[in-house]
Amino acid sequence: MNKIDAQTKPAIMSGVLSPVVTPFKADLGVDAARLVKQCRWLLTQNCGLAVFGTNSEANSLSVGEKMDLLDALVGAGLDTGRMMPGTGCCSISDSVALTSHAVKLGCGGVLMLPPFYYKGVSDEGLYRNFAHVIEKVGDARLRVYLYHIPPVAQVGISLKLIERLLKDFPGTVVGIKDSSGEWANTEAMLKNFPGFAVFAGNETILLKTMQGGGAGCISATANINPAAIHALYANWRDAGAEAAQAKMNDLRAAVQKFPMIPALKQAVAHYGNDPAWERVRPPLVELTAEQKAGLLGELKARAFAMPGLAG
Amino acid sequence: MNKIDAQTKPAIMSGVLSPVVTPFKADLGVDAARLVKQCRWLLTQNCGLAVFGTNSEANSLSVGEKMDLLDALVGAGLDTGRMMPGTGCCSISDSVALTSHAVKLGCGGVLMLPPFYYKGVSDEGLYRNFAHVIEKVGDARLRVYLYHIPPVAQVGISLKLIERLLKDFPGTVVGIKDSSGEWANTEAMLKNFPGFAVFAGNETILLKTMQGGGAGCISATANINPAAIHALYANWRDAGAEAAQAKMNDLRAAVQKFPMIPALKQAVAHYGNDPAWERVRPPLVELTAEQKAGLLGELKARAFAMPGLAG
Repeated sequence: MNKIDAQTKPAIMSGVLSPVVTPFKADLGVDAARLVKQCRWLLTQNCGLAVFGTNSEANSLSVGEKMDLLDALVGAGLDTGRMMPGTGCCSISDSVALTSHAVKLGCGGVLMLPPFYYKGVSDEGLYRNFAHVIEKVGDARLRVYLYHIPPVAQVGISLKLIERLLKDFPGTVVGIKDSSGEWANTEAMLKNFPGFAVFAGNETILLKTMQGGGAGCISATANINPAAIHALYANWRDAGAEAAQAKMNDLRAAVQKFPMIPALKQAVAHYGNDPAWERVRPPLVELTAEQKAGLLGELKARAFAMPGLAG
Repeated sequence: MNKIDAQTKPAIMSGVLSPVVTPFKADLGVDAARLVKQCRWLLTQNCGLAVFGTNSEANSLSVGEKMDLLDALVGAGLDTGRMMPGTGCCSISDSVALTSHAVKLGCGGVLMLPPFYYKGVSDEGLYRNFAHVIEKVGDARLRVYLYHIPPVAQVGISLKLIERLLKDFPGTVVGIKDSSGEWANTEAMLKNFPGFAVFAGNETILLKTMQGGGAGCISATANINPAAIHALYANWRDAGAEAAQAKMNDLRAAVQKFPMIPALKQAVAHYGNDPAWERVRPPLVELTAEQKAGLLGELKARAFAMPGLAG
C-alpha cells in the first residue's frame, strides 16, 4: 500500500489491524524505538496499525506522549495509510488536538472513542462531541472510525447515533470498530449501513463479519497472531475458512485465560526475546510467574510462533 | 485561613468544599475570568475550592486547560490553602504532571481519582498508580485526598487499598471523598481509620458524617447552597441540626430532578444574572427550556437565593 498523498482523502481502510501494545522503559516512560520496531514487524505480517487502542494502554498515555509516538512512527517512514490511531479522549480539547495531529501526519484514519467518564449521557451529547471534533479539526482528509466498546468505556455508540453522523458527515464518518461482543449489534450495523466499514472487535467473528460485508477486524490478538488472522481475512471465501476460524479462536481462548494486555506483552517479550516488553503501566500489572508459565505452556502446546519478531 | 507557606506542609483540610462548576466561552474554551469570580464568591460563603471535580466537568478538560485555570486562580490571589483540585487522570503521566503543578502552586491538597478507563483492575494496580504518582511528584508538601466515586468512575478505592496507602504514605495520603452513596462504606472509613479526613460525597449525609468524626463534605450542591451547608458543618452539634439537614436535603432533591451539572450551571446563570454559565461541554447538554423552567420553579418555591453572586 502506498503512502497517502497529503492532499488526498485516504482510502477507506480494510483488513486486519492491531491495537499495538505500547512498550515502556524502566521508568514507565514510553519507548518509541521499540514501538517502531514492533509496528514494522506488524506491517510485514499484513497487519495495520491501530495504535492507541484499548490494548495499547492508550488511556494510560498522555496526549503529548501519543503525539510523540506518532511522530516517531511517521519519522521512521512507516506507511501512514496503514495507521488508524485512537484519538478519542474524555476531553473534547484533547480529542481535537490529537485528531488534528494524526490527520496532519497523513494517517489513513482515526479510531474515536466517545468521551467515557460521564455515564448515562445522551446521543445528543455524543453527537455534539463528534461533530465538534470534526468541525474543529476542519480537514477534508479526516476519516473517522467510531469505536464502540461498552464493556470497557461503558459509554456506547448507538445505531441511531451512527445514522445521524453518517447523514451529517458523509465521507468523514466512514466506519466503526464494534467491540460490543454482541453479534446482533455487528449484524445490524452491517445491514443498516451499506458502505460503512464495519470492523469486528475481535477475530472470533471475522468470518461472519466478512460474510456480512464487513471491512475486517481490529483485534487484541492481532498483536501476536497477525498472519493467520490476515490469511482468513484474505481467503474467507475458501473451503478452509471455517477450520482457520476455529484454529484462531482456540488460540485466542488460550490467551484469554490470562489478563489480555499483560499476556500479549508477555508473548511479545518471549517470542521477541526482549523482556522489556513485559512492562505495563498502572493500573495494570504484569503476569505473575505462574501466569507467565501457564501462558507460555498454552502457546507451546499449540506450536505457536511469531516468525521474524526476534532479532 | 492563611495562605500556606511554600515550605510548610499544608494543614489537613476540613469543612465544605465545592466541586466548582467550570465556565465555558462560546467556542467551548475555558473561561478563567468567570471561574475566578465564582471561586471568589464561594470563598465568601466559607466554601473551599475542589476545582476539577466530577461536577466541574474536569474530565472534559485537558491537563493543560486545568493547569492554566489553576494558574489563574492562584494569580488572582485566591487562598491556595482552600484549594483541593482534582488531579487524578487515566494516564499516570498526566496525574504526575497535574499533581506536581498543584503542589508547586501551594494547593492545600489534591483530590485524586483512580485511573478509570480500564475496568476490573486490581488493588495492586491501583496501589502502584498512587504510589508512582506520589513518588514521582516527590514533594513533602503533597496531601492526597482519594476520590471514591464508583457510580461514575466504575473503578473504586477499597478499604484494603486505603489501609495499605495509609501505612506506606502516612502524612501524604490523608483523606478521602466518599461518593459511593453507601453509608456503610463511609461509616467503615470513619471507624477503621482514625485521623483520616473523610469527606461525605454529598451533604445529605453531612450530619451523620460529622457525628462519626468526619471532616466535612464535598458536594455538587455546594456550588449553589454553600452557606447553608457550611452552617450545618459548623453547628452540627446544635439543636437545629436535624432540621437544617432536612431542609438542605429537600433543596438537593429538587435540583436532582434535573441533570445535575447543567442544573447547577443554570442556577448560577440565573442567580448570577450571567447566561454564559449555561454552557456545558459535550457529552453533556444544557437543560431544555422546559427543564429550565422546572428547575427555576422548584428553586423559587423554596425562596432560594445566592446572596452576593450577581453584580
